[in-house]
Amino acid sequence: MPAPCIICVAITGSVPQKSDNPAVPITVAEQIESTHAAFEAGASICHAHVRNDDGSPTSDPDRFALLKEGVERHCSGMIIQLSTGGRSGAGKARGGMLPLRPDMASLSVGSNNFPTRVYENPPDLVDWLAAKMITHDVKPEIEAFDLSHIFKAAQMHGKGQIKDTPYVQFVMGVKNAMPVDRRAFEFYVETVGRLFPGAPWCAAGIGANQIVLNEWAVAAGGHART
Amino acid sequence: MPAPCIICVAITGSVPQKSDNPAVPITVAEQIESTHAAFEAGASICHAHVRNDDGSPTSDPDRFALLKEGVERHCSGMIIQLSTGGRSGAGKARGGMLPLRPDMASLSVGSNNFPTRVYENPPDLVDWLAAKMITHDVKPEIEAFDLSHIFKAAQMHGKGQIKDTPYVQFVMGVKNAMPVDRRAFEFYVETVGRLFPGAPWCAAGIGANQIVLNEWAVAAGGHART
Ligand SMILES: [Zn+2]
Ligand SMILES: [Zn+2]
Ligand SMILES: [Zn+2]
Ligand SMILES: [Zn+2]
Repeated sequence: MPAPCIICVAITGSVPQKSDNPAVPITVAEQIESTHAAFEAGASICHAHVRNDDGSPTSDPDRFALLKEGVERHCSGMIIQLSTGGRSGAGKARGGMLPLRPDMASLSVGSNNFPTRVYENPPDLVDWLAAKMITHDVKPEIEAFDLSHIFKAAQMHGKGQIKDTPYVQFVMGVKNAMPVDRRAFEFYVETVGRLFPGAPWCAAGIGANQIVLNEWAVAAGGHART
Repeated sequence: MPAPCIICVAITGSVPQKSDNPAVPITVAEQIESTHAAFEAGASICHAHVRNDDGSPTSDPDRFALLKEGVERHCSGMIIQLSTGGRSGAGKARGGMLPLRPDMASLSVGSNNFPTRVYENPPDLVDWLAAKMITHDVKPEIEAFDLSHIFKAAQMHGKGQIKDTPYVQFVMGVKNAMPVDRRAFEFYVETVGRLFPGAPWCAAGIGANQIVLNEWAVAAGGHART
């Protein structure tokens, strides 16, 4: 029997607002119930961002703590992955929730362009976030917005900056970063297979490309982000 | 007969100083003579940075003008490519020499990490530099520090932001960006061949990897940076 597919539900993200879609869970209470529904439907990882009351993204550790506590209570056994992404905070504030010791946290290991700006992950911040994840026993999910990020994860693993084999997520379809390209996807899969033999990996597509990446990933033996 | 190999000589770069190697040409006069020697030895493109008197990098258009004039005088027919790279200036100052109408200029189309910092090429600056190159009839050399940069060049070409087929250079071996990896190099070649069928391309390796990339590039039908 092949390994079961891991479904990671990204309930909120950092960008969409109620004005985009009233179903987007913004408050912690909404996020907990949304995660609970996804958990019942089969999701086993919760990838979480938190928001201020006005809907703007934040890295506030207190909000993350409330969310984590609620998800643990409603979704026993679900893996909780908190975002350290740069849309929700700047500098070390991005890692302020790591002392909560979630099961996982996202980790960007390189920089790239976003639709209207540079997504800045300076080397010293990457090193600091990775070190804090080791301190607090948090497994990183490597967000690969470009090919070199997979190589960088391998170098960090080789130097002991990432414990265990990295769990890499390919992110495709971000404007000005890696587009949704079938051959590039295949080369990502090949590269992860070469650098981390046998390791699980997953893929995310932005917007309408989410389902495209789900199909490609599941067919190629990878895991899925919703 | 196969097409002859184009040798691009990067006489100075933005980083090395006389204290690293007394042979590094720093003054404009030194750069002109160094370029002349390379031209006599077979180089046909001069990739140029300029320096302040203290050796620090600058984007000063007056220095570029002196260098360009000297290279034209000493090396008749040599293709002159001026750097718009981010180590020599910030923001639009990086394109201040484009009104000199050099044959070519380097163009970074995405962001990535450098050894100790983020190499920032924000989308609006990339658009501006590309537009100025069209205005002044300057052919860009696309500096591909990562895979997505090749796709971005194709998108820009498709939108008319780059005239003619882009001349792509793969840059490998920059710490925290793309390492010198044979399979990644092969995938770069495949991707350029797919997106820009039949177009020439070149490759640069940092430091001791320069000769490795030269060998790989020439054997694969590409061109060489020294
Ligand atoms: Zn996220
Ligand atoms: Zn519930
Ligand atoms: Zn240069
Ligand atoms: Zn001369």
